[in-house]
Amino acid sequence: MSGGPQAGGVSTALLTDRYELTMVAAALADGTADRSCVFEVFARRLPDGRRYGVVAGTGRLLESITRFRFGDEELAALSGVVDAATLDWLAAYRFTGEIDGYPEGELYFPGSPILTIRGTFADAVILETLALSILNHDSAIASAAARMVTAAAGRPLIEMGSRRTHEASAVAAARAAYLAGFGATSNLEAGRSHAIPTAGTAAHAWILLHDDELGAFRSQVEALGADTTLLVDTYDIRRGVELAVQAAGTGLGAIRIDSGDLGELARQAREQLDALGAVTTRIVLSGDLDEYAIASLRAEPVDSYGVGTSVVTGSGAPTAGMVYKLVEVDGRPVTKRSAAKESRGGAKSAVRRFKPTGTAVEEVVHAVGSRVPVGPHDRVLPVPLVRGGEPVPDLPTLDESRERLRGALVSVPWEGLKLSRGEPAIPTVFA
Amino acid sequence: MSGGPQAGGVSTALLTDRYELTMVAAALADGTADRSCVFEVFARRLPDGRRYGVVAGTGRLLESITRFRFGDEELAALSGVVDAATLDWLAAYRFTGEIDGYPEGELYFPGSPILTIRGTFADAVILETLALSILNHDSAIASAAARMVTAAAGRPLIEMGSRRTHEASAVAAARAAYLAGFGATSNLEAGRSHAIPTAGTAAHAWILLHDDELGAFRSQVEALGADTTLLVDTYDIRRGVELAVQAAGTGLGAIRIDSGDLGELARQAREQLDALGAVTTRIVLSGDLDEYAIASLRAEPVDSYGVGTSVVTGSGAPTAGMVYKLVEVDGRPVTKRSAAKESRGGAKSAVRRFKPTGTAVEEVVHAVGSRVPVGPHDRVLPVPLVRGGEPVPDLPTLDESRERLRGALVSVPWEGLKLSRGEPAIPTVFA
Repeated sequence: MSGGPQAGGVSTALLTDRYELTMVAAALADGTADRSCVFEVFARRLPDGRRYGVVAGTGRLLESITRFRFGDEELAALSGVVDAATLDWLAAYRFTGEIDGYPEGELYFPGSPILTIRGTFADAVILETLALSILNHDSAIASAAARMVTAAAGRPLIEMGSRRTHEASAVAAARAAYLAGFGATSNLEAGRSHAIPTAGTAAHAWILLHDDELGAFRSQVEALGADTTLLVDTYDIRRGVELAVQAAGTGLGAIRIDSGDLGELARQAREQLDALGAVTTRIVLSGDLDEYAIASLRAEPVDSYGVGTSVVTGSGAPTAGMVYKLVEVDGRPVTKRSAAKESRGGAKSAVRRFKPTGTAVEEVVHAVGSRVPVGPHDRVLPVPLVRGGEPVPDLPTLDESRERLRGALVSVPWEGLKLSRGEPAIPTVFA
Repeated sequence: MSGGPQAGGVSTALLTDRYELTMVAAALADGTADRSCVFEVFARRLPDGRRYGVVAGTGRLLESITRFRFGDEELAALSGVVDAATLDWLAAYRFTGEIDGYPEGELYFPGSPILTIRGTFADAVILETLALSILNHDSAIASAAARMVTAAAGRPLIEMGSRRTHEASAVAAARAAYLAGFGATSNLEAGRSHAIPTAGTAAHAWILLHDDELGAFRSQVEALGADTTLLVDTYDIRRGVELAVQAAGTGLGAIRIDSGDLGELARQAREQLDALGAVTTRIVLSGDLDEYAIASLRAEPVDSYGVGTSVVTGSGAPTAGMVYKLVEVDGRPVTKRSAAKESRGGAKSAVRRFKPTGTAVEEVVHAVGSRVPVGPHDRVLPVPLVRGGEPVPDLPTLDESRERLRGALVSVPWEGLKLSRGEPAIPTVFA
């Protein structure tokens, strides 16, 4: 079988903490396995100083749940972990409950009920690790990426961080960055699995391989066309720009600068390109860019940015810190009592309130069933995602989720889009 | 097919940046594809303030290279990316070169030649993204985990961070943490793929599911035996400890405390357990532990630690920052000339010098072929890893690499094991 780590058929069932299965075993033994439960995914807080979070990974999660099956190989691996009765139960396992949640691409705030899972205890508890892995990773990346997109103020961003993260995370990171508004990725598997546009230029190795820089540029143009992007900073940038135009002509697609004082170099390169007549040649910058560096380049003649390390590692917040908590058993709200970790029992929903102008005002989190007024500009946030164990029809595509986020960011009060540290863009009110 | 993301047969070829393949296409077209090249993986610096790095992921990389094949599905996905001649070349691709490198579990320092890849340009450049993804991720985790193991001063550590990172990263993170000296992981796929011991306790959901805490404890003991670990901090910890011993008897295996002032709570729980006669019951602490928190608990009566977020995210350094640089073409050293990024051309080797007492003194990085004296206590670091495209026989097992690291850490000067920020434990000397 081919198809990479995202492809169909491969079981996701062992991507799970051991204690989920031993709890199932103990619950099957004492009769609590069938108790009707509600679990909720939420974040107690945003990463330090962040003003919003972006829900990402929902689509990957729903697809992964359909592959959460215990085949012969998985069961064999579990023979020392749980008893025979539990192995039988696992062999027949498929999720049959219901899931509601914030649509992918929606914003979230502290306490937002991002995902609500209803099912028997055993059916629902077993999905905890997988659900959190996917949502915590993908939301961390999308939340960082959205800040970079805002900082770029309309200029395109290319995600090129695959080499800085686990090889399978790289594929999910490319997806999350695209969801957040990046225009393309360097990652070929992300192109295949998620139909994201792929892009690339050349490495310094390409220049060093050749006897001279002009020869390297000429070969690249010959093979890939004048619209290619030539990397001009291997030796002397001024000379590199000159040779690039010499090799490709004034129709050269773009140059890339990957080192040095990027703003100053971009200004010089723009002047030089214009003087050479290459007025349509674009300037791509890369090299340890994050949202702050991108924002600082806003006044410079830059056409697009290549971003690596900072986006795939969540720019200082590599995980979203979401938790998966049991909030209701047989209709009864339950909650851990601990001073340090504030928890609220009971199944919850949420309404985001907006001004008539479309600006978000507050996130109202309330018990399911309680009467919370929903004004004409307000929005009920959770939507059905899984019914009878199956993803609902017509779930949004990745491009639709991307559009949702674009719209959601427009609704954030302007302070909420600042890169500086601060409070959440809107308060969460527990009604 | 079953078997999770680690299992055999699945192609790794698209876990690659697009520009690697377009460079191959251009090199095939201009005749440079067959130039004999040497690429080197190294880190320009350690993460801010760290004193050593741990090489990890080598075993995973060598296995992944054997699956770096372009099958029909991969080639179909590349039809718009490269030309027909390149697709033919990719279809026949298998790495046929040589790889040397630091053994997995070895320490590295700035400039250490961690991996040296020899082959034609096309053969070797194409492995860049995959090699860096694996080494940067796994080394970041192992480097952080090793500091936690040092901080724990012999007490066992359990890796339980799967939920805080991408679902496939979680498996690799468990492997890297085990390599660094953790005793077990919560991750079942890591247990299957890498034969790492798995462990687990129970979640707060287990307690909340039941009508009362005593009932939950009794059920768990009934199903899993008195040697299980009971989670005692759902409601009142003092009462929890009392009920835990009531449910399991004085032979209770362990209690886990996941919140609050862990040192103070551990002291109180130890006193209480001893007073109840449960003198052999162990105390497991968890809850946002990192190397600093672990070190601060050294004087407390703790038996083991459960570590999550901080280990799987590299405790502030989620990527190792290694690069894959072309250093030699047809026997000629090559190097990028840029003020900001110091580079040294030419294939390199390294010797670590030791005092007769076994304490490391310096890392000598030198050109291959140059005469560097190797004293009786010194060690040549790179070893053969791949010959004729195939992993060499008798590569170290994960347990052997774990032993290697344990020995390497003993050799570090004592300042080098401090958790505080500082310089690399030994200097790198370029001979």
